[in-house]
Amino acid sequence: MFNARSVALVGASNDPHKFGYMTLNSIIRGGYKGQIYPVNAKGGEIQGLRAYRSLSEIPGEVDLVVVLVPAHFVPEVLREAAQKEIPGAVVCSGGFREAGRIDLEEELKSISSRYGIRILGPNIAGINYLPNKLCSMFFPVITTRGPLAIVSQSGTVTNGISEWAAGEGLGISAAVNLGNQVDLCESDFLDFFAVDENTKAIAMYLEGIEDGRRFLRALNRAASIKPVVVLKAGRTPEGQRSASSHTGSMATSHEVFSAACGQCGAIVANDLETLYDCAKALATMRPPKGNRILSISSSGGAGTLAADVINVQGLELPKLPPEFVEELKKLPLSALATLANPFDTGADLDVQHFEQIALLADKMDVAEIIFLNFGDPMVGATQMVKDLNSKITCSLAVGYFAGGEEERLGRVKIQEAGFPVFPAPERAMRGMAAAVQYALFRKTEKQEDAFCGLGGAKRIDLRGGEGNFLVESEAVKYLDQYQIPYPEHGMAHSAEEAVDIAKQIGFPVVLKVVSADVLHKSEVGGVVVGLKSPEEVMDGFKQMIHRVQASAPNSSISGALVCKQAPAGLEVIIGTTEDPLFGPTIMFGMGGIFTEVMRDVAFRISPIGRSDAEKMIREIKGYPLLTGFRGQPCCDINQLIDLLLSVSRLVTERTEIRELDLNPVRLCAQGVMVLDVRMMRRDK
Amino acid sequence: MFNARSVALVGASNDPHKFGYMTLNSIIRGGYKGQIYPVNAKGGEIQGLRAYRSLSEIPGEVDLVVVLVPAHFVPEVLREAAQKEIPGAVVCSGGFREAGRIDLEEELKSISSRYGIRILGPNIAGINYLPNKLCSMFFPVITTRGPLAIVSQSGTVTNGISEWAAGEGLGISAAVNLGNQVDLCESDFLDFFAVDENTKAIAMYLEGIEDGRRFLRALNRAASIKPVVVLKAGRTPEGQRSASSHTGSMATSHEVFSAACGQCGAIVANDLETLYDCAKALATMRPPKGNRILSISSSGGAGTLAADVINVQGLELPKLPPEFVEELKKLPLSALATLANPFDTGADLDVQHFEQIALLADKMDVAEIIFLNFGDPMVGATQMVKDLNSKITCSLAVGYFAGGEEERLGRVKIQEAGFPVFPAPERAMRGMAAAVQYALFRKTEKQEDAFCGLGGAKRIDLRGGEGNFLVESEAVKYLDQYQIPYPEHGMAHSAEEAVDIAKQIGFPVVLKVVSADVLHKSEVGGVVVGLKSPEEVMDGFKQMIHRVQASAPNSSISGALVCKQAPAGLEVIIGTTEDPLFGPTIMFGMGGIFTEVMRDVAFRISPIGRSDAEKMIREIKGYPLLTGFRGQPCCDINQLIDLLLSVSRLVTERTEIRELDLNPVRLCAQGVMVLDVRMMRRDK
Repeated sequence: MFNARSVALVGASNDPHKFGYMTLNSIIRGGYKGQIYPVNAKGGEIQGLRAYRSLSEIPGEVDLVVVLVPAHFVPEVLREAAQKEIPGAVVCSGGFREAGRIDLEEELKSISSRYGIRILGPNIAGINYLPNKLCSMFFPVITTRGPLAIVSQSGTVTNGISEWAAGEGLGISAAVNLGNQVDLCESDFLDFFAVDENTKAIAMYLEGIEDGRRFLRALNRAASIKPVVVLKAGRTPEGQRSASSHTGSMATSHEVFSAACGQCGAIVANDLETLYDCAKALATMRPPKGNRILSISSSGGAGTLAADVINVQGLELPKLPPEFVEELKKLPLSALATLANPFDTGADLDVQHFEQIALLADKMDVAEIIFLNFGDPMVGATQMVKDLNSKITCSLAVGYFAGGEEERLGRVKIQEAGFPVFPAPERAMRGMAAAVQYALFRKTEKQEDAFCGLGGAKRIDLRGGEGNFLVESEAVKYLDQYQIPYPEHGMAHSAEEAVDIAKQIGFPVVLKVVSADVLHKSEVGGVVVGLKSPEEVMDGFKQMIHRVQASAPNSSISGALVCKQAPAGLEVIIGTTEDPLFGPTIMFGMGGIFTEVMRDVAFRISPIGRSDAEKMIREIKGYPLLTGFRGQPCCDINQLIDLLLSVSRLVTERTEIRELDLNPVRLCAQGVMVLDVRMMRRDK
Repeated sequence: MFNARSVALVGASNDPHKFGYMTLNSIIRGGYKGQIYPVNAKGGEIQGLRAYRSLSEIPGEVDLVVVLVPAHFVPEVLREAAQKEIPGAVVCSGGFREAGRIDLEEELKSISSRYGIRILGPNIAGINYLPNKLCSMFFPVITTRGPLAIVSQSGTVTNGISEWAAGEGLGISAAVNLGNQVDLCESDFLDFFAVDENTKAIAMYLEGIEDGRRFLRALNRAASIKPVVVLKAGRTPEGQRSASSHTGSMATSHEVFSAACGQCGAIVANDLETLYDCAKALATMRPPKGNRILSISSSGGAGTLAADVINVQGLELPKLPPEFVEELKKLPLSALATLANPFDTGADLDVQHFEQIALLADKMDVAEIIFLNFGDPMVGATQMVKDLNSKITCSLAVGYFAGGEEERLGRVKIQEAGFPVFPAPERAMRGMAAAVQYALFRKTEKQEDAFCGLGGAKRIDLRGGEGNFLVESEAVKYLDQYQIPYPEHGMAHSAEEAVDIAKQIGFPVVLKVVSADVLHKSEVGGVVVGLKSPEEVMDGFKQMIHRVQASAPNSSISGALVCKQAPAGLEVIIGTTEDPLFGPTIMFGMGGIFTEVMRDVAFRISPIGRSDAEKMIREIKGYPLLTGFRGQPCCDINQLIDLLLSVSRLVTERTEIRELDLNPVRLCAQGVMVLDVRMMRRDK
């Protein structure tokens, strides 16, 4: 499709107001060197090229057909294309699913699967692949070639980012608009651009995804080769459905989506400019070897603006080591220079001084990234940046504003020379942060197979019905099988049996009613804690049964679990839900109101690896509580990691389990303990 | 200064590399119509104007002197200026405080106060006041006049925003660079621009502030007249100091600063582009009458991008009422249009259709803001926006991207016509959010004098020393005086006395050790709760005293407070600290780890009004817990508001109190109760 040596354009036109004119015009203006075959029922000549009445009339081989005719003609055109053995079609025409014609879309799908012709679209602006100078897009004609591939469901976003990239001198390798995705989808293009030598980074704007697991595998594979930035737009109905389940009440699909992408090594952006800034940095920066930045500016204000977002971004502005400061003093700098980080040259605009400072910093390993934070007109900046880059191993990024005409020209030249230029210090920082984050992923991803476990996972079947809850005594059996710690316990069918069990396991004990009809035990008085003697157990059992019967008269009660009471400790919650897009998803958070009000939770798609589990634990805001806050003992983080991994194995292997709620999980200085479990089994 | 009819430029030069050349050149190129008097010791002619050897040689009156000579000559020039009765001086020269010459700066200060000459600077780029075409700034020469005044400590920020505004067609009324502020400071310029008819909004970039209370009063006065956006940069050492005190451990001065500005009606921006976006919206949008937005776009992607930030921004995208949808159906819209909000015209780029939809929405009161969310080339957009605006009462804002050459020209024309244009939907949303927030402030501010209490407050004396903590029995007396509810209690000096008091107030009781040497009672075992009988009180008292003596052998123990145990309830924390910039500052938050780990706290400068107290309570994340979460009773919010107001009165009136910690404060369904108080009194 992208490397087509010949293109047929069905619906080509001489009428400048028609897409069939504009698209052909774009191909010509884009400088395409292959054969162009305009196709129009009238034949004749179109825009100076011989027009054919039909695809079959074309004498030579055709690699790609671009379809611009009204929707109801499209199936016929594609069948003809298939007969001519054209391997790929870009269907720009609208009027399908978005116009209520799902039937037409199904027809396209069946043509593709029957004849093997691959279809992009319908309902798209088209594609632009600059290495082949193939701009088959009615608007805009972007010819500024660069390292960035844009894959976007929205034509506007495709165009917007293309124009920004062209205007700034960054350029693009490709722009693809996904549209209705009857055949080719985001994962196909991830696969392509992952190995496309002309692309250094991939920027994606996605609205919906067909096959979540396939997407994650493709994303993970691509991110292991080159950086991918993803902006997912739209709070979906699926997200709302997910939010209705218990542990998932905080799981807007956006939270899960972000976690999933991050897990696979993609950078997640939450708005359009962030998508662009991150993609720009990732496409052009030398991969940073660490997160330490040296900001050099002639402007105190620019330095301060950068420093003010340093913590938000996960970057570091290291203090300058004394020996570096000593060396700085030997340079011919202004007396007003502030020898600190951010470095303020004191209104000294001599770019040679910037270079000298940066060279010294590189040599003395003061930072891994040099941020040339220009806040004035910087004459000679482009040459200096190029020279500097050839002499150092640090990464370079440039911020440039408040520089008048010199800036307006200089920013494009610097960008054209291959260095990211940002219009404000804070945007530069977020670009650098993306570069640091991605470099970190590449450094750590090889250490374990972690998420790659997904590679082998079958497509998740999400049509398992609503499911039903197991009684706790049944659920506990699953925990046992996966070595998930649960208090020593026994199932008692009478008060006497409860006393016997309690004596066996030792006091104090907890009683929990077991009834298939009781989901929320506490709400019907079905839990009693702190029973210290046989008498208390005897009374406690009887009273509990009595309470439950009073509160839930129609419930059938099997008896009670008698559990050894766990030692005191911090409580957390671990849950799994079945995400409608990605399948089994694990949640970890601080218990109770932290989860429900503060939304202090972390998500990962299952299966997870050890480093995923570690990151989940560290990323919640309440993490300091786990590590010995205010003289409390540090919780057993290793056991907690093991627990998360066990839960992941459980929901991956035991596909009959649809949802799981370990709430609370008690964390002690030594060991962890699940105190309560709710488990939903998929309906047969 | 701004309206000077004549300007003398001391240090004017014919050497194009000198600031003295560039600044004179700027004044000339800016089109200044008043008298220009270049001053240079050599006399002669400079840039075609007669040069004077000194200020005194100038024949006519001089309204403003711009000083560009080296620092050590500046005092002499200013004395001469004062003798010539020049009322104002802009001192651009550097080489003062920033170069270690505080002495020179003090000299300027004393000249100003002795002779009355007002000084801006030193160490600045200068000023630009476009209504007077007075661009006394060596760079850049901005002549695009518009509604925005920029007041900035940093020359780079002044220039950067000026250039953005000029480049986009927004324009500026003025740009002022503050520099070292020996005399005139940010508050002076707030005062000026608040009443300057040529200015519709004020954008401020601040690094440090001399007189915090004066700043807040000026800010509040200005914000009551026109919108002010503030970007405060730099985490100050003072902020760190503030963070070291107990309740202030979360109080980075930035949090307090943001709260203070918001309290005064200013919009707070946290990065440069947000400062600009908000200022643009506020300077040009018709004040919105509500927060409901109708987004109209030919691009589904643009609409989705806007919708995705709606919650972050506090805006609303209302569902379209059925009667509106019915009327829409009568319009000649595309069959592919999505009749929802965001409204997607279905790739219909006809601006007339945009206008028709907007007119209908305005007429049928569907929203208070129409967001023209352009994501394509929109031919005829400028005229349409102008026409539309004249026919509606809704506010208008425009987003424009992915529109190629048509956009590049159109966006400037629309902006020049007086409507804010943003380069991405999300940035448009934050601009609109600022407009909504400011309109809300203007609507509610008149309802009470709230913060304006500050207007009468004297300058806060922050040099009160470190202070010392009161024993609780003393602190409680202050609470009594301000009707702050504290449990019924008595001071017991012996176990027997404790029993008597307990009998009087009723069981159960709490014992709390009273000792000037014990600050953290719990840590030395100095608190016992739940004592239900005379025996328990007797034993509890003795054991407690024993424990405290064992833990803190050198402490002198006065006895114990015997308090009636409060009913169960939710616990919050209220504290006050002395902010180094603003003085008494009130903090409210959820207790314990919520405050210390989750940083779920709200700040306000004291005194506060009822609406401040209400907003503080509502803005913490844990707020849902207070309003009856999960079937819990709703807390007594009114009593909590009263408590915050009482605390505010206490720290405002009793200036000897430096810090106050009410922790915890228990909230019940009826009433609130302070359970523990720590109070620090200022050293004499």
